[in-house]
Amino acid sequence: MQDQKTALVISAHAADFVWRCGGAIALHQEKGYAVTIACLSYGERGESAKLWKQDGMTLEAVKDARRAEAEAAAKALGAHDIRFFDAGDYPLELDRDAKFALVDLIREVQPTFMMSHSFYDPYNTDHMYATKLAMECRMIAQAWGHNPGQTVLGAPQLYLFEPHQTEQMGWKPDVFLDITPVWEKKKAAIHCMEGQEHLWTYYTNLAENRANHFRRNSGGQAGGRPARYAEGFQSVYPRTVDEL
Amino acid sequence: MQDQKTALVISAHAADFVWRCGGAIALHQEKGYAVTIACLSYGERGESAKLWKQDGMTLEAVKDARRAEAEAAAKALGAHDIRFFDAGDYPLELDRDAKFALVDLIREVQPTFMMSHSFYDPYNTDHMYATKLAMECRMIAQAWGHNPGQTVLGAPQLYLFEPHQTEQMGWKPDVFLDITPVWEKKKAAIHCMEGQEHLWTYYTNLAENRANHFRRNSGGQAGGRPARYAEGFQSVYPRTVDEL
Amino acid sequence: MQDQKTALVISAHAADFVWRCGGAIALHQEKGYAVTIACLSYGERGESAKLWKQDGMTLEAVKDARRAEAEAAAKALGAHDIRFFDAGDYPLELDRDAKFALVDLIREVQPTFMMSHSFYDPYNTDHMYATKLAMECRMIAQAWGHNPGQTVLGAPQLYLFEPHQTEQMGWKPDVFLDITPVWEKKKAAIHCMEGQEHLWTYYTNLAENRANHFRRNSGGQAGGRPARYAEGFQSVYPRTVDEL
Amino acid sequence: MQDQKTALVISAHAADFVWRCGGAIALHQEKGYAVTIACLSYGERGESAKLWKQDGMTLEAVKDARRAEAEAAAKALGAHDIRFFDAGDYPLELDRDAKFALVDLIREVQPTFMMSHSFYDPYNTDHMYATKLAMECRMIAQAWGHNPGQTVLGAPQLYLFEPHQTEQMGWKPDVFLDITPVWEKKKAAIHCMEGQEHLWTYYTNLAENRANHFRRNSGGQAGGRPARYAEGFQSVYPRTVDEL
Amino acid sequence: MQDQKTALVISAHAADFVWRCGGAIALHQEKGYAVTIACLSYGERGESAKLWKQDGMTLEAVKDARRAEAEAAAKALGAHDIRFFDAGDYPLELDRDAKFALVDLIREVQPTFMMSHSFYDPYNTDHMYATKLAMECRMIAQAWGHNPGQTVLGAPQLYLFEPHQTEQMGWKPDVFLDITPVWEKKKAAIHCMEGQEHLWTYYTNLAENRANHFRRNSGGQAGGRPARYAEGFQSVYPRTVDEL
Amino acid sequence: MQDQKTALVISAHAADFVWRCGGAIALHQEKGYAVTIACLSYGERGESAKLWKQDGMTLEAVKDARRAEAEAAAKALGAHDIRFFDAGDYPLELDRDAKFALVDLIREVQPTFMMSHSFYDPYNTDHMYATKLAMECRMIAQAWGHNPGQTVLGAPQLYLFEPHQTEQMGWKPDVFLDITPVWEKKKAAIHCMEGQEHLWTYYTNLAENRANHFRRNSGGQAGGRPARYAEGFQSVYPRTVDEL
Repeated sequence: MQDQKTALVISAHAADFVWRCGGAIALHQEKGYAVTIACLSYGERGESAKLWKQDGMTLEAVKDARRAEAEAAAKALGAHDIRFFDAGDYPLELDRDAKFALVDLIREVQPTFMMSHSFYDPYNTDHMYATKLAMECRMIAQAWGHNPGQTVLGAPQLYLFEPHQTEQMGWKPDVFLDITPVWEKKKAAIHCMEGQEHLWTYYTNLAENRANHFRRNSGGQAGGRPARYAEGFQSVYPRTVDEL
Repeated sequence: MQDQKTALVISAHAADFVWRCGGAIALHQEKGYAVTIACLSYGERGESAKLWKQDGMTLEAVKDARRAEAEAAAKALGAHDIRFFDAGDYPLELDRDAKFALVDLIREVQPTFMMSHSFYDPYNTDHMYATKLAMECRMIAQAWGHNPGQTVLGAPQLYLFEPHQTEQMGWKPDVFLDITPVWEKKKAAIHCMEGQEHLWTYYTNLAENRANHFRRNSGGQAGGRPARYAEGFQSVYPRTVDEL
Repeated sequence: MQDQKTALVISAHAADFVWRCGGAIALHQEKGYAVTIACLSYGERGESAKLWKQDGMTLEAVKDARRAEAEAAAKALGAHDIRFFDAGDYPLELDRDAKFALVDLIREVQPTFMMSHSFYDPYNTDHMYATKLAMECRMIAQAWGHNPGQTVLGAPQLYLFEPHQTEQMGWKPDVFLDITPVWEKKKAAIHCMEGQEHLWTYYTNLAENRANHFRRNSGGQAGGRPARYAEGFQSVYPRTVDEL
Repeated sequence: MQDQKTALVISAHAADFVWRCGGAIALHQEKGYAVTIACLSYGERGESAKLWKQDGMTLEAVKDARRAEAEAAAKALGAHDIRFFDAGDYPLELDRDAKFALVDLIREVQPTFMMSHSFYDPYNTDHMYATKLAMECRMIAQAWGHNPGQTVLGAPQLYLFEPHQTEQMGWKPDVFLDITPVWEKKKAAIHCMEGQEHLWTYYTNLAENRANHFRRNSGGQAGGRPARYAEGFQSVYPRTVDEL
Repeated sequence: MQDQKTALVISAHAADFVWRCGGAIALHQEKGYAVTIACLSYGERGESAKLWKQDGMTLEAVKDARRAEAEAAAKALGAHDIRFFDAGDYPLELDRDAKFALVDLIREVQPTFMMSHSFYDPYNTDHMYATKLAMECRMIAQAWGHNPGQTVLGAPQLYLFEPHQTEQMGWKPDVFLDITPVWEKKKAAIHCMEGQEHLWTYYTNLAENRANHFRRNSGGQAGGRPARYAEGFQSVYPRTVDEL
Repeated sequence: MQDQKTALVISAHAADFVWRCGGAIALHQEKGYAVTIACLSYGERGESAKLWKQDGMTLEAVKDARRAEAEAAAKALGAHDIRFFDAGDYPLELDRDAKFALVDLIREVQPTFMMSHSFYDPYNTDHMYATKLAMECRMIAQAWGHNPGQTVLGAPQLYLFEPHQTEQMGWKPDVFLDITPVWEKKKAAIHCMEGQEHLWTYYTNLAENRANHFRRNSGGQAGGRPARYAEGFQSVYPRTVDEL
């Protein structure tokens, strides 16, 4: 029997979870959830430009550096666990065995909710591949005939976190989360991404502006909830409730 | 200061609220909300075929009959209040004064949430007109310069209730509400609609099938929450939360 | 009791019906339908550039010229009837009385199917207004309480005929009609539009290319039905059939 | 030369064809079509929960049971033939050889129309994979260079049958089929699905409600064709006709 | 004959043009365009909360204050002209005469391009009404029969500027404009909006983040054009070019 | 350092580039671009019906014939280069090595812009697969860790050229290119496609009608640029500009 609430974040590359849902990770961890992060690749080929500009760089050295950063960021967020699938990037590709390893993790975690990328991303096909995979493995984890005897998965929500250029990706948030209480943790995690200083300001600006949207939607011009930092998410499945 | 939670249902014709959100009305009323229903017309011209087939029928007689049915249904649901705007149907049309009367009601109720029709309805343009109106009057009710001194509206959610042929209307529910505890009340309200017996079975079938969707989305094949009757709604605005 | 099949074309401006569904009019007329054309305006302000370039032109003279052309085209197509609403164009606007006159016509014709413009047209707001009107008046014509005693309308299909730049209008044909047998009639009707010779070639090209689509969809690369001229239409409502 | 009309249903899992198009199968069979059903998998892993809850169950035993049910259902519907591809489920995957086997079947059947799942299904990626496959194999079957000498495929319509939660799948029916004459056969086929009694009522409710939509679209409030059971389908390709 | 390039911005409320396209106005003015701003209302009822919170405020006093701010902002941007239609807000409504006054302005300016709001805005129906109006009046201005003798309008692009919550409005930018050279002017114009200090930071953050998008789309990870501030726009009509 | 402007066309089958962007190739070549065409397959199985109807035809003979035609067409257009990937068609499939070969070509060309098929094509899954591939390989070519030391790709626009039935493919052009100056070259290239004479007229009609759209969008009814032949394209990514 499972008493603890849990969450599973499926991140195509090592750093994605920091920018896109670092606040959600830290906040739910503080609320007693055990949040596990699955990094399908290290982003070693496609998202490590700064490292590759150094002389004599090797693929393994890039992976090691990216892994260290991701672990530091996960720690800064207080995440319960971080797992690396090392499935390669640009392009990201998981074969049948790798998919089943992800299914194993889903069943191990039994997440209350899951998170992944937007449905569509014409700039980065790894991102939409990860989301496709998240839906497929969620389905396999629900199958009674997959590793019979294991506890099958229920019906966790899948939240799509914010992509880089939302309008180009057709991503539309239907829920805003107030991350003000954990902003310092997200900021610390962001600062672990040493090769990407140019994005620090970007994601700080974004969190401030999403807080404006939070305030608008919680109170209109009459004055809403005074959030200072927020994150937005798009839900894949309908909610089931006892009160609207 | 407002302590009580409230809701406002904007119904194009007198009977719409019964089929489409009778369960939500009864359920929230039981939970302590004061739910007000606004009937913009009686559906006297376009949704009263049975009455018009009687000899010597007049417009006033149809209105009276439809009003009586709607009041009986509202009572069966335990609704706090029902208001009639008598704005005419097929087509429904509200002039500036009538719009402002609806704004007055919105401000009087100060709803925690609002409800109306789907965005689109190629079978019934009154329905989509009512939704357009709900959005417009919500905006006016938020304006500090409209009747200065009155309490302006906050940012209530607008839920779009289920239209008759959902796929033709492009309506997509993002929340299912378990109405099992109040099904008998909804059934009683449905039975107040004497001219439309052929729809009684239709909406009972629908409530049962929506409960299947509730179960699927609350637990998948692993077995979800055992709802027996449910209603679905589409949210217009994003939610603002402290926990996903 | 109605034995004859009928159709009603609702055209925003006097010439629209010629280019967009002249073939369908002629073909169905040959098949025994009585096809009525409703021209909501003469296109006198916005679609009569050539006439306005003449010295001393007046609004009435333009209307007369456009009406004469439209009547000649209707005759060339063998249409049963053509009615002019003279509601003005750029912008087209029908008040309540004019709408009810259109409802009267719909009930008089009792169309087996109706035709109008695309849902969307950012170049010409009269076109989308006409479609909105067609849906609204179809609804009113179905109301038992509108002019009680008249025969109410059933549920005729509404076909949206082809707009000028289909992709910009989001128009998608779901049915292609072989108009080869009546092409000479459509050509004759097109030639009645003396002020718009530059469009003669355009719509001939289009009819030939739509025939290619007809062939593709009737037989693929294996070789389909040898249509030489075709028109495409988008259906608003689902069909009801006994065989697929 | 082919005189007989034929149809081909491509079903991801063994039971899909029963719920979603059992009526269409039985009806067209009665009208003289030879309807062939292709079951790409038995649904042995993902759609056989009840069997897996039994002690000592094996994959082969599940497959056998599901196959027997599917064969019984096909017989109840009077289907011409049922073929099993045993390609595995959760996830369903066909390699090049398996795809070509499906192409072989398409060419063998030379279907007047084809049927498969909705384009999109975030709950069940096997379903959308089957549709993708149906489109791909339809294309290959049309290629003159694939197994030269065989009769190539024409341009059969592909109907998408009704998924479980239509709005979540973005499925929109454009044709309703009256299955009243064969309802008892569909009911008998449904009752062959012994492990899924909870769905018997669901799909009976659905068939009744789709009949309401059939009536609405065949006659409006004026009273349409008195269908009591119906199924809905979405067409992928435009129709080609001689009369609207 | 017209030698000077011109632009026309159609703004629903007095301040909209500042936040949404202040950079485009200042930049094109510097490039030799004459940019005219049309403020359809002062935003006196719905976007002047701070003023209404003052004792004894009147509608005229609010209008005067908002007009002064808008004029100061237009001056800070170096705009060629600003015109006020005083058509009222919440709701904004233009009758036939007011529409024709807007048509007069369009013909007077003969804009090389036009600007207005997003197509859709469920928070603010005035915004989408202004866009609808811009399209309708653009069409009327093209009509040879409207005020015959005047120079008719050509086919200027209509750019939709950025709404407040882009994803909720379904707005998708297809062009980013580097406004770095005129940022100080936009900043000065923003600072004219004394009642809305909370938005100063918001729109500065936004301009910085749009510059990130500019850099990404001009050069990818390889390093693009070093814009520091940018604005995004959605085009309504296709472009016509001699080189891609 | 790269001084010359370049373009890369990714064509699923050998003949696609001729019909869909032959004008763009010839025009940009005349303007000093070096345009390279990548034919992923020869269309040997699925788009060579006429050849397969000859006795004793073999796959190699079809490939040779199609290659010769494509080379002749490329020459007629004055294209800089044409490369054949021979990856097979119906279905088209590129494994990891073949993808990387395409990445190599992209890096070799360093295109100012790229071209490929529409996002969606229910008639021809090879087409949408080619577009998916174009986006994926564009991403890989941007990765600093892919073949470190090579020059990485910038952010070239990806234009989607016109599919055969635009509305069925959901393709929407946002730019029209005047190809009048090179029409004779495109015509010559079209005439290289000896097996497809029935398409010569089709694509001539289309080019004439697209020129009408060019004229409309460059000048409205006031009279636009007098293009006689045009091609349309849909952009995947936003543009970045200094002037609108």
